[in-house]
Amino acid sequence: MKTLKLQDLKNLDNQDPLSAYREEFYLPKNIIYFDGNSLGPVPNKTKENLNKTINEEWGNDLINSWNKANWINLPQALGNKIAPLIGAMAGEVIVVDSTSINLFKVVSAALRLNDNRKKILSELTNFPSDLYILEGLNGMSDNQYECVLIEEDVNDIEKYIDSSTAVVMLSHINYKTGRISDIKKITKYAHKKGALVVWDLSHSVGVMSMDLHNIGVDFAVGCTYKHLNGGPGAPGFLYVHSDLVEKVTQPLSGWLGHIDPFAFDSKYIPASNINKFICGTPSILAYKAIESGLDVFDEISMEQVREKSIHLSEVFIELIQQECGEFGFELFSPNDAKHRGSQISYKHENAYPIMQSLISRGVIGDYREPNILRFGISPLYMRYEDIWSAIICLKNIMQSNEWNSSNFKVRNYVT
Amino acid sequence: MKTLKLQDLKNLDNQDPLSAYREEFYLPKNIIYFDGNSLGPVPNKTKENLNKTINEEWGNDLINSWNKANWINLPQALGNKIAPLIGAMAGEVIVVDSTSINLFKVVSAALRLNDNRKKILSELTNFPSDLYILEGLNGMSDNQYECVLIEEDVNDIEKYIDSSTAVVMLSHINYKTGRISDIKKITKYAHKKGALVVWDLSHSVGVMSMDLHNIGVDFAVGCTYKHLNGGPGAPGFLYVHSDLVEKVTQPLSGWLGHIDPFAFDSKYIPASNINKFICGTPSILAYKAIESGLDVFDEISMEQVREKSIHLSEVFIELIQQECGEFGFELFSPNDAKHRGSQISYKHENAYPIMQSLISRGVIGDYREPNILRFGISPLYMRYEDIWSAIICLKNIMQSNEWNSSNFKVRNYVT
Repeated sequence: MKTLKLQDLKNLDNQDPLSAYREEFYLPKNIIYFDGNSLGPVPNKTKENLNKTINEEWGNDLINSWNKANWINLPQALGNKIAPLIGAMAGEVIVVDSTSINLFKVVSAALRLNDNRKKILSELTNFPSDLYILEGLNGMSDNQYECVLIEEDVNDIEKYIDSSTAVVMLSHINYKTGRISDIKKITKYAHKKGALVVWDLSHSVGVMSMDLHNIGVDFAVGCTYKHLNGGPGAPGFLYVHSDLVEKVTQPLSGWLGHIDPFAFDSKYIPASNINKFICGTPSILAYKAIESGLDVFDEISMEQVREKSIHLSEVFIELIQQECGEFGFELFSPNDAKHRGSQISYKHENAYPIMQSLISRGVIGDYREPNILRFGISPLYMRYEDIWSAIICLKNIMQSNEWNSSNFKVRNYVT
Repeated sequence: MKTLKLQDLKNLDNQDPLSAYREEFYLPKNIIYFDGNSLGPVPNKTKENLNKTINEEWGNDLINSWNKANWINLPQALGNKIAPLIGAMAGEVIVVDSTSINLFKVVSAALRLNDNRKKILSELTNFPSDLYILEGLNGMSDNQYECVLIEEDVNDIEKYIDSSTAVVMLSHINYKTGRISDIKKITKYAHKKGALVVWDLSHSVGVMSMDLHNIGVDFAVGCTYKHLNGGPGAPGFLYVHSDLVEKVTQPLSGWLGHIDPFAFDSKYIPASNINKFICGTPSILAYKAIESGLDVFDEISMEQVREKSIHLSEVFIELIQQECGEFGFELFSPNDAKHRGSQISYKHENAYPIMQSLISRGVIGDYREPNILRFGISPLYMRYEDIWSAIICLKNIMQSNEWNSSNFKVRNYVT
């Protein structure tokens, strides 16, 4: 293999058809950001959008903005902006509540549709909150479900799907390994066995193309604060296939899910459309930040984003091998690009202090228990040159033993 | 009774010890705002706080702000700012999710504590979302609860509380009538009968003083976008008495309610403190607007706020009688100030077009089905003089028959 040089990466940047999108974001100087899979950076238009909302909509028009500025339709309007990113149709997606709460709703809805079956299948290394929601949901029923959490490769899950399986609930991209689950294959198999599927798209939406509606995916949820750049803790989204929307019900029946909330009836009658998955009143300020994040995607081809994501990742892995081969980093993500999402994880016995040392030098990735360095790849604002700088930085840290300092060992929060 | 004149009201404004707080808010010109019980106006510091969060915390420090800016502790930090407004102790309140979702959590928690009882008591005219949440919760259990919704005066509820009553769930102030429920009396009686109480403080927090902890109230929820001025759809709060926090559990078990979220365990173990009521990741932008809303209350005596609220309301009712006595407005709120919250409702057969006509002239109240004009009283920014102007405006609309125009009959959304 030919040795990569800085100039090779600069050349790739010059040829990058997505390079102009970097200008859409505020990226602090002297930072290389590998944490867009945890919290995306600020889109430039966000501040202006929020200020306009505060000054004009909330400030001047006050309560009237629920109509005049169409706040009341934001859950669906933002959902319709996410729809093309995941291969959904208009009316199949809403933005509301958190990913975990949305998961509670859609798993409940799925279990009601398959109420003669008692098994829920997931993966032991699924994002913990997804498993916790299953536990919480299960604790509410007198008639407990059997939750089976497989420990094998997710794409081997089929042998566990049988006629007792009500729901298969999985992440599209594993948060820790970056492993891609084959949505189409698993969904088709689950349906063949009469099971329903719930996909968590938190780590894949915005970096991969998807085809949810055509595949026939029943339910999905996802996050807007990672690759959609909607702001810290921004509300989640949920998807329900149009064939199911009318017949499903869910238990978090708040007033904005009512067919006619402003009639103030004492009896709950769910909306006939996706609005039945709304519960209480959602934060408009949070929505407006998501709106600006989604606006960036208006003209983007997700195939092109995925192509750049793969190329950035290949360069990353190649450079680690070339520059840091001697330091014991073990690739934890799949080596084959078609099985790997837009993140690269390495195992290393000193992962924690090494990551802290990188962060102190402005290379922001994150650490995951028990020994994992995780680097998110963000094709909209990441340059090939950034990969070079980051890995040279890692090399310096390893060569100088800088990571082995006591102040890199204090534990921080990460999300 | 002596006839009130404009100068009398100006004199009251000059003597008002709270008059300076009006300067803390942005209030559009030519608007008199009686809808602070629906959506509070913008506190002046909100925009600056949001911009700082976007530029510095999210913009420059990115993921690191979960620690550095202490985002991770905002649910409790904001809860601790609400605590003194409701007579709670530090650690008994968190701000998170929506009021409806919080109600689902605390009613679930209460039912688990009283799991040998099968009756839930509420009021038929409670805010509909609260009733819908009971329906949704009830639909999840194989073993249904009996939901009894009383139609009599809320303060006569005691005769329905017996040894089968698990939970009494009521609003402190009725959203439609403004009727105050006697928290102390009902809570004490419920406890005597072995029932637990859940209070919805949405319409009372920020305009009345309360004493939840000392009374021994078990659970409460409330809204931050009305009298706390936290922004459209801002997250709700919940309160759990310190005697119960450690032993209760709730079903919306997301990762930030885990005792150690960043250990990423596959098994859910709830936090031992109030954090066990957090579910998914909350919106930081929404929180920062609430923070600015709550900052206004830092130095305020709730007794003083209540006193002004009563006085404004008395003047309002007196002026309606004096200026609009001939037009058929029937007071729907309690006449006795000690039973009336910070809002005044009138019945009128033409309530809808009259309110639309008022709104068109900048007097912003709201309409509630089927025939109610609702005027919220907001002591922090409302002047006595505003009451005069609003009622003279109403008089003009009635005298000129202006309300009886077809364009005031198109229905709008309101919240």
